[in-house]
Parts: sequence; C-alpha cells; structure tokens
Amino acid sequence: MDIAVWMEKFDQGDVRALSKIITCLENSNGLIPDAVKPIFSRTGNAYRIGITGPPGAGKSTLVDGLCNLYRKKQLSIGVIAVDPTSPFSGGALLGDRVRMTRVGFDAGIYVRSMATRGTLGGLAEAALDAADVLDAFGKDIVILETVGVGQSELDIARAADSTVVVLVPESGDGVQAMKAGLMEIGDLFVLNKADRPLADRAVQEIEAALDLKREHAIWNPPVIPTIASRGEGLDKLIDALDKHRITLQESGALEVKRINRRKERIRQIAERELRRRLWSDPRLRLLDKNVEAEENPFAAAHKLIDDFLKG
Amino acid sequence: MDIAVWMEKFDQGDVRALSKIITCLENSNGLIPDAVKPIFSRTGNAYRIGITGPPGAGKSTLVDGLCNLYRKKQLSIGVIAVDPTSPFSGGALLGDRVRMTRVGFDAGIYVRSMATRGTLGGLAEAALDAADVLDAFGKDIVILETVGVGQSELDIARAADSTVVVLVPESGDGVQAMKAGLMEIGDLFVLNKADRPLADRAVQEIEAALDLKREHAIWNPPVIPTIASRGEGLDKLIDALDKHRITLQESGALEVKRINRRKERIRQIAERELRRRLWSDPRLRLLDKNVEAEENPFAAAHKLIDDFLKG
Repeated sequence: MDIAVWMEKFDQGDVRALSKIITCLENSNGLIPDAVKPIFSRTGNAYRIGITGPPGAGKSTLVDGLCNLYRKKQLSIGVIAVDPTSPFSGGALLGDRVRMTRVGFDAGIYVRSMATRGTLGGLAEAALDAADVLDAFGKDIVILETVGVGQSELDIARAADSTVVVLVPESGDGVQAMKAGLMEIGDLFVLNKADRPLADRAVQEIEAALDLKREHAIWNPPVIPTIASRGEGLDKLIDALDKHRITLQESGALEVKRINRRKERIRQIAERELRRRLWSDPRLRLLDKNVEAEENPFAAAHKLIDDFLKG
Repeated sequence: MDIAVWMEKFDQGDVRALSKIITCLENSNGLIPDAVKPIFSRTGNAYRIGITGPPGAGKSTLVDGLCNLYRKKQLSIGVIAVDPTSPFSGGALLGDRVRMTRVGFDAGIYVRSMATRGTLGGLAEAALDAADVLDAFGKDIVILETVGVGQSELDIARAADSTVVVLVPESGDGVQAMKAGLMEIGDLFVLNKADRPLADRAVQEIEAALDLKREHAIWNPPVIPTIASRGEGLDKLIDALDKHRITLQESGALEVKRINRRKERIRQIAERELRRRLWSDPRLRLLDKNVEAEENPFAAAHKLIDDFLKG
C-alpha cells in the first residue's frame, strides 16, 4: 500500500498504520517521505516520560505496571523500549516477548521495541521520531524506556517531560550511580526491588546524593520505593509523576522544556539531512576509495567536505 | 606558548606538551589547528586495547594492574579513561584521584580522564583523537577504558585492536550482559572479583554464551578469572592479549581492522567538520531564531540545510 494511504489510516487511528509508519521512519535512513512529515507538526499533546537505569533494575516490569495503572485512568499509552541488538538472536532481546504476556492485547497500549543501530546516534533519532509519531497518533502518555547507562541512552530518556531513574539496592553505593551519570538526569527516582536487603540504606544513600543539588530547584526529586513485580509503590510513582507535571506546567518550565526539545529536534534533523546528503552523493563514494590512500585523515576528510560543498 | 612550540616539545617527548595538545583537541570543537594535524599521520605503531564493562566491575583497578605489568616489560603506556561528568563535582569523578595513588608518577605511564560531553558523539571523537595523539607520541600500548554499557561508550572500546570486556559474578546471568551488548564486542573476557561467590558459575555462563558464536571464528574469546585488587590473573590476561595480537597479525585481520578504523576516522572527521561549518555559520545562527517559529521541524531543518549548501 502507498504510504499516503497508510497516513489516511493513521489519521483514523489504525494501529497497523501506526506500526507501518514507525517502521517506515526506522528504515528511512533520514530520507523521510513527504507524506509522513505532517505528523511532526501535530506533536505536543502527549506527556512524555523517560525511564532509565542500569540493566536488571526491573524497568520493563515497572513500565508494564505503569501502563496498567494509566489504563485504569482511561489514558492511552505508547511505549518505546530501546533494547540493544544481539547478533546472536538477530533482534532485540526479551523486550516484546516478555511484555506480550503482561500487557496483553489492550488496544490502548502500544509497545515498540527498538534495537541499537550501527551508526552513532542513529538510535536516538529513531526513538525520538517514534515518540513524535505516538504523540501525533493521540497517545496521552508516551514512555521512552532505555536500558543501559550510556550517553546516547541517557539522551533518549532525557528527551522527556519527566525522567524516572530506576535503581535497585544492588546498584550499589550511590557513587556508582553518580559515576554512571544517572543522578543528574532524574526528576524522580525509583528504588525498585525494595523488598531486598539494604533497600532502606539504598534509599537513604540516593537521598543523600540528591541533597547536594536540592538547594536551587523548583522541584525536589523524590525517591520512591517500589516492588514492581507485585505492583507495590506504583500508585505513589504515578502520583509523583502527576505532581511533577503540574509543577512543570505551573512554573512555565514545561513550555521551556518543549521549546528546547523542538530546537534540538530541528538541529538533529538538520544534521541527519546533511549527513545523508554527504554520504549519498555518488561522487563522494568514489572519492571515499581514493582518500583511503592519503596519509593524513584530516586532509582526506577536508577534501571530501570541500568537494561536497562546492557542489 | 604557541601551539607550534608545543608541537616541537611534543616531538621531543615532553609530557606537558602531550597534555597540552590533548587539551587543545578537546577544546577545539572540531577546529583542529593545522600545526597539530601532522600528528594524525604518525599513528599506527601503538597497540590499542579497549576495556569496558558495567560500572563497578573494577575496570580502573584492572587497568592499573595491566599498566604495572606492561611497565615491567619496558613498554610505555597511555590510558584514556572515559568518565561521565557529574555536575555535582564539576568534573570527572574518581578517575584520576584513585589512580594517582596507584600508578604514581612513573613517566612511562600517562593517564588521561575524559568526561562526557553535551553533544552526542562528542566524547567518542575526543577519545579517539587522544588515542591518536598517544600513538603518535610513541606509546607502545594505548588503553581506552570506558565505563558504562551505552552504544557510544561501546563504540570507543570497540575502536581498539583488542577489546576486553570486564564482568563480575554479580553482573548476573549472562543474559543481562548480552542484553547490554557486551558479549558481541569482546575479544577477551575477564571475570573480575573471582574470589566472590558464584564466580565459577559466572565463568561457565559467559563461556556458554560465547559458544554460540565460536564456530566461524579465527579466534575464540577466552574467559580469564582475575582478582585485580590483588593482581591475580593479570599475567594470564597479558598472555592472552599477546596471543590475540599475534593471531590478528598472522591472519591479516589486524591490517583490515586498522584500515577500517582509518576509514571510520575519515568519515567521523568529515562529519564533524561539516557539522562545525553548519553551526558556525553566522547566517544560520540568525536563521535558527526564525525557524523556531515554523510549524514543521523538517521544513525548518531542510530550509537550514538548503540555505547552507547554497553557500
């Protein structure tokens, strides 16, 4: 079917069309079909929640629990779960399979797993594209869940209205979490698996680490103990998320966040488009072969760019 | 002092000049001074070792131990330790401070901590620049140590001749490590803190996970138990690294790796240069303000690029 036909179905709320369009963007390599572009003018209605934390912290289970609670409030949800690819399995590990058993086939919940790409930054772009699509589709809540503690993964979780950092008692002594850059990006902290030993101490350590930055803020990040596997504490997390959203709205910070996010998107799309034009130029592909012989990589690279900009 | 003077001192083996030039590249934002560029024609002599693994696996201690052993073999070493920045402390956490007490003031060891940058991919570029500088300076071994399990961090560790993945018994059941994308990039695996409970089982699990890809390979990644804090097992790791290097050299794979790395560097420098020219154009900074008002981010971004390419 033509992409324009899918767009019509998308506008009618067809979930297959939603999937189709996300896939189309994932495979577009930056060359977005014109028919799809209007989607990106229709964003800004969904509330975006970023969820991140170290591997094994129970993020997927927590997200499933949040989905169920939001559904009870009649809110529709889109989830983008960023999962590194394994060449062993040829695809994203666990993500979808585990989820299917939990959130089932509720039409109000859409879950999409995304695998890491070869190119640096490619995944962040694909994830943010998909978040915009879910937003334009009319989802009330869009959750961006990223595994890992890397810079690009954190950037994805940070591109949200509220960012939740999930830790577990074993994540260790706070210093490790700070070292991983997690303490800085959290608007809310969850201490999951709070029935495990040393959970109380872990909560205290996270709070102590947070105290260092509490002075200037309009919002003091709370630390919420949960046992996601039993659904315990998730209602408190939802309440805290609501409170954070209201604080952002009332202070005007939400509007500032969204303008900055929009600006960042334009920059990102511009860089992607420029990269695409650079590497899709057949003249440059030929040059690519020649430059390998040149001695200095700067000389080779600058020759490429000069030729490209000369047209 | 003028950068050309520092370059002279660099050629004479002056460590202060080495530091100065790495700093200069870090702050250059892609605008590398011409005087520095010849450095990048003089790479290819150092053997590059990437070391990565989850936070808390003991990578720093392991690297310190490796440095000491390599020094006993009269080899000179440069270490680039990638540490996420904390806004709390205003700089890289732990890295240097911990190290100073261990490797001391041996002139044959140069350790440089690098903090994550705001821009996506910026750190990978800075780390690879620094690796080239250490290589050109004449270091026999260059170690790229990255904390975390993110895509860009893995890319840094992967840009090496041999990549070592450090795990601990608590890293869990292999599935988590696979999920984090660590199993695919390791040429050698270290099970550190091997005196902890379940270490034997962890070694078996890693080996079982590796067995899945062992069929086609010219090299079977070994799993080496270590207790880095006591120096145990590090001699075996050095032996395995030597064996890996010889295998790569004899099979021709080292040459292929280095050509690909060179190609990747040219691409990366070209993209950085193009980005730099795009965002440093004052006309575009003005446009940037205008485009924020436009409705569709694609329209805004493409307008930017079209104007830029028109010159």
